[in-house]
Amino acid sequence: MKPEKNKLKEFFEQNDRYAKLNGMNIEDIREGYAQTSMLITSEHLNGANVAHGGAIFSLADYAFAIASNSYGKLALGINTSISFLNSAFEGERIYAKACEVDKNHKLASYTITITNKEDKTIAIMQGMVYKKDKDLLG
Amino acid sequence: MKPEKNKLKEFFEQNDRYAKLNGMNIEDIREGYAQTSMLITSEHLNGANVAHGGAIFSLADYAFAIASNSYGKLALGINTSISFLNSAFEGERIYAKACEVDKNHKLASYTITITNKEDKTIAIMQGMVYKKDKDLLG
Amino acid sequence: MKPEKNKLKEFFEQNDRYAKLNGMNIEDIREGYAQTSMLITSEHLNGANVAHGGAIFSLADYAFAIASNSYGKLALGINTSISFLNSAFEGERIYAKACEVDKNHKLASYTITITNKEDKTIAIMQGMVYKKDKDLLG
Amino acid sequence: MKPEKNKLKEFFEQNDRYAKLNGMNIEDIREGYAQTSMLITSEHLNGANVAHGGAIFSLADYAFAIASNSYGKLALGINTSISFLNSAFEGERIYAKACEVDKNHKLASYTITITNKEDKTIAIMQGMVYKKDKDLLG
Repeated sequence: MKPEKNKLKEFFEQNDRYAKLNGMNIEDIREGYAQTSMLITSEHLNGANVAHGGAIFSLADYAFAIASNSYGKLALGINTSISFLNSAFEGERIYAKACEVDKNHKLASYTITITNKEDKTIAIMQGMVYKKDKDLLG
Repeated sequence: MKPEKNKLKEFFEQNDRYAKLNGMNIEDIREGYAQTSMLITSEHLNGANVAHGGAIFSLADYAFAIASNSYGKLALGINTSISFLNSAFEGERIYAKACEVDKNHKLASYTITITNKEDKTIAIMQGMVYKKDKDLLG
Repeated sequence: MKPEKNKLKEFFEQNDRYAKLNGMNIEDIREGYAQTSMLITSEHLNGANVAHGGAIFSLADYAFAIASNSYGKLALGINTSISFLNSAFEGERIYAKACEVDKNHKLASYTITITNKEDKTIAIMQGMVYKKDKDLLG
Repeated sequence: MKPEKNKLKEFFEQNDRYAKLNGMNIEDIREGYAQTSMLITSEHLNGANVAHGGAIFSLADYAFAIASNSYGKLALGINTSISFLNSAFEGERIYAKACEVDKNHKLASYTITITNKEDKTIAIMQGMVYKKDKDLLG
């Protein structure tokens, strides 16, 4: 990771408290790209004993936020659509990769893929951000 | 709430551990309808110091899950789309109401509205479930 | 309809050639609201002999476009999500109603409901627009 | 194309009347994959003089329908989400490619990418189908 990417990583690790609550890690950051991961623990389970849709979404949203803020300008998620394809279970680590599809000066679109260690697709998400004229890191 | 609704409420309160981790409450359950709420604490915040999209989604998803399981049969969320309209802040309680739009024997569709105490819309979600031939409460 | 609403109606009727190709009508326009309708003919059918998803979407998108442009500023659809709930058949007229959920200075969100004459829900759509600093009517 | 793929192609070309109305072609069919194309004519334009969102959606939906029916069993689109990224103009040919992301016995998920000749992304769509226990071709 380049130095500015380390700063970005530090920023999210220190300031995103919901990522902390969920036990989410940052695996990789590049311009327009980010990968996050999370070990599914009993705290992430729903009544059906599998990972809660909200936990899976949150991991994907975290990768989406980092990728869309990777240029250093504040970008806000305005719209996301997620399809849940396979369950994720306690004890497995899941991964979310956010890739930029396209961007213009105010909007950008991302595809986020959530997989488990065997590369089975858990969920697929599409997200759009609105970019503010403001630097992310003060 | 009718006795069977109390059972459903108990089931979710005892078994949905992600709801517990997030501090989410069940406010109301009726057939095809549920309302949940959550007090935004510092643990729900993202790097921009507002409620994380994942926390807002999770509250909506919880209302969606309860509403779609309110008939007693297991229903799994397969697809959701959420638009984030206004930020939610630390210290405020937000509410999610899930209302059934339509259902057939295998699929059902819900609209979930997330608002704050002043009834400002925080987010709006559309969700679809697939119904299994299995009772929710063993 | 107020005079400015007639102008808007005329603008769409004269300039939206895809609406013409599809045989779509404007039933009502108010600020942040529009209703459109379309008689399903054999030309709208897919291989399963019901109205093509694209035809249903197009009617909804037309109501969405009119409602979001009803303030006289150019608004562009950036994201829509649609759930198809019931089939629409040849010979029936279907209706799309677009209602504003929320707006700020650059973005606005709409819910669009598509029903038949018996008020059965054919589809439900959620859409977001980006507003340009440009008047719609030259 | 294998012989059974020619049958599928013929089926859609003869029976999908909305594809005919829109001037849509089938470029390729494989299991879980399809590509369609359409020349944008004046009939596809909206009031802003660019291709109507409904026309772009319809082309994507056609690729989605063919890909999801490519196994020979009837599959119905139940949910789609589309992000519009760049305008498409009169006189250009646009392409939609539908790729299967995952499937189980009742549901399947597709990503559909809509591009122009220069491979600029016009729109990106995510779609889900519900599979019926019925053969597509009588």
